[in-house]
Amino acid sequence: MAEFGQLKPSPRILLGPGPSDVHPRVLLAMANPLLGHLDPQFLEIMNETQELLRQTFRTSNRLTFPVSGTGSAGMETCVVNLIEPGDKMVVCVNGVFGQRMTDVAQRAGAAVTTIEQPWGEVFEPGQIRDVLRKVRPKVLGIVHAETSTGAWQPLEELGKLCHEFDALLLLDTVTSLAGVPVEIDSWAVDAVYSGTQKCLSCPPGLSPVSFSPRAVEAINRRKTKVQSWYLDMTMVQRYWGEERFYHHTAPISMVYALREALGLVHEEGLPARWSRHLRNYQALKAGLAAMGISYAASEGQQLPTLNAVRIPAGVDDATTRKRLLAEFGIEIGGGLGDFKGKVWRIGLMGYGSRPNNVLLFLAALEQCLLAQKAQIELGAGVAAANRAYA
Amino acid sequence: MAEFGQLKPSPRILLGPGPSDVHPRVLLAMANPLLGHLDPQFLEIMNETQELLRQTFRTSNRLTFPVSGTGSAGMETCVVNLIEPGDKMVVCVNGVFGQRMTDVAQRAGAAVTTIEQPWGEVFEPGQIRDVLRKVRPKVLGIVHAETSTGAWQPLEELGKLCHEFDALLLLDTVTSLAGVPVEIDSWAVDAVYSGTQKCLSCPPGLSPVSFSPRAVEAINRRKTKVQSWYLDMTMVQRYWGEERFYHHTAPISMVYALREALGLVHEEGLPARWSRHLRNYQALKAGLAAMGISYAASEGQQLPTLNAVRIPAGVDDATTRKRLLAEFGIEIGGGLGDFKGKVWRIGLMGYGSRPNNVLLFLAALEQCLLAQKAQIELGAGVAAANRAYA
Repeated sequence: MAEFGQLKPSPRILLGPGPSDVHPRVLLAMANPLLGHLDPQFLEIMNETQELLRQTFRTSNRLTFPVSGTGSAGMETCVVNLIEPGDKMVVCVNGVFGQRMTDVAQRAGAAVTTIEQPWGEVFEPGQIRDVLRKVRPKVLGIVHAETSTGAWQPLEELGKLCHEFDALLLLDTVTSLAGVPVEIDSWAVDAVYSGTQKCLSCPPGLSPVSFSPRAVEAINRRKTKVQSWYLDMTMVQRYWGEERFYHHTAPISMVYALREALGLVHEEGLPARWSRHLRNYQALKAGLAAMGISYAASEGQQLPTLNAVRIPAGVDDATTRKRLLAEFGIEIGGGLGDFKGKVWRIGLMGYGSRPNNVLLFLAALEQCLLAQKAQIELGAGVAAANRAYA
Repeated sequence: MAEFGQLKPSPRILLGPGPSDVHPRVLLAMANPLLGHLDPQFLEIMNETQELLRQTFRTSNRLTFPVSGTGSAGMETCVVNLIEPGDKMVVCVNGVFGQRMTDVAQRAGAAVTTIEQPWGEVFEPGQIRDVLRKVRPKVLGIVHAETSTGAWQPLEELGKLCHEFDALLLLDTVTSLAGVPVEIDSWAVDAVYSGTQKCLSCPPGLSPVSFSPRAVEAINRRKTKVQSWYLDMTMVQRYWGEERFYHHTAPISMVYALREALGLVHEEGLPARWSRHLRNYQALKAGLAAMGISYAASEGQQLPTLNAVRIPAGVDDATTRKRLLAEFGIEIGGGLGDFKGKVWRIGLMGYGSRPNNVLLFLAALEQCLLAQKAQIELGAGVAAANRAYA
């Protein structure tokens, strides 16, 4: 029988598409002993977590809480609660997560229409107006921050546009929440999900969701049961609401972690946090540009939180990423789907979005590229980043 | 804007139906910094966790791993992967969790037949043979340890019986795994799920599952997609299997916790662990009997892990549980459904199944009953427990 030793993960700097590095205070929060899931002290922690989540989503939606699963469970929660078999749904696809939403919606019995943009590009309001007019869907789903391409979808007008056509707007904010502005109420978003392991710098395992009163009405008008018992909002909300009616056992330690992570967001303040993410992205971008590395998404549509960049010609994807991990403990992500082998995905999210990480990553990348005899001007990356910070 | 202070949960002794007290080594495991979900070191931790889970389930099933959700997500995983719309399923209902399985199966489109036993009682092989013969279902679902009633279902013959009628046996081991014998291979169980927050003494948030080759074949023969994307074994197994193909981001910290919790099971050894649970149950039972408190389940069918006992006449449920929590930090559970206000549920699970907890609980309960002028012989409970330990 094999022997299992002490858990001793090597130190890492997680600059991939997630999980991102977790703040030490969040790690410590998880080491706290457990309360029961109906303990009055835990109910208070739930209330605080919900209030902090509302602040972070910039919403007053009552139905705002973390689903007991990762970001993809949040996506499924939104879809299966809003959709009944036969309902029409439009999904905007410009990367892996739009594709995933299409799959989830089809499994929920939706009649799905997709509109597409090339990977790395975003959707224009005109395109969305056209499809809304033509299809008249119950729900339109779109990704705010496409983790597979680094594209940053503008959203200001979309909620009103959807409501003009009596559609609900469903938004993926997995890689945007607490990294770039997310304004659920002023953008008139009806259903939104996120993940804890990106810009919240909390371990993966929960998915914050929020539903507008309009979405809650749609859920209350359902004629069929939600196909998932585990993700059924009509039941789960009785536990996260005033009744405190048992549904499933809440993941206590993860809720501790999320509350601490949201507390850190609250202490920093959202505007300061957004500026920090922007500043570190600008420095990284300047450094990469000086090394001849360009972004997959167009200028003005690049996420500060997830930098998808083209792998330079003659440089090997796997060799570089393995060396970054083995020699520097730095993790970055490879490409998914259409972008496999063609792009790297460099996350600067939450606690990970720091000048130290930007500078060290550029320096380490230079060493890796040098070993592969890439044509680069030595020191140019770090120098350019430092000029950007100056 | 409200201020959110330091997280400071009061010390608790969790003797309810779960979550149970988490071993300190498991709490510390969660404070480790994160690895990426495709980091070679994390893949090794996944392998170890799977190997430890197989040992704990006593199975050689390849498809054995923790689902990224709580026990109820494990139930839903088993059902939605085995069932296609229109498939026949029999569910054995003698408490809340059989009822829940019925609801989950109906949402998955199963044609469900239920057989029932009164709460606190178990099913006889004859009953099950009759329904198998009559219905010829694809799947028969049954609960090993009914957390709502404390009833302990015998299982030795059921796997063979199901296979005689070409049915798959689906088993709920949420409150039994690592507390009482669970023998997936020798009982010929085809699909099983459990929870981490009971006898594994790990926080809630993961659900260990295992599928026999026969169950895997049934999944591979499906004509329709699994209705849940998040819980689709045909996809998730590509991440937990050799391919390591990205599906959703694994809950890293919870996997650390589970590995440590399973390591503790491995160190203690299953037979020693089962004996320990039995011994502490016997002492608790002797103590409660001396205080005039009897079990909801029949003699010989009582779970050592979850003691559902009748609230003595004249004693108030809520008053007693509130006092136990406020004065002694002890949490026990109230009754669910038919048993609401009628029974207490006292968990002695994993790390929580200790003589200290038994003795302290009996002493504290005596004080609570005394305050309500219940007719008890002072000191009798603790004395009887100590005689049982002697």
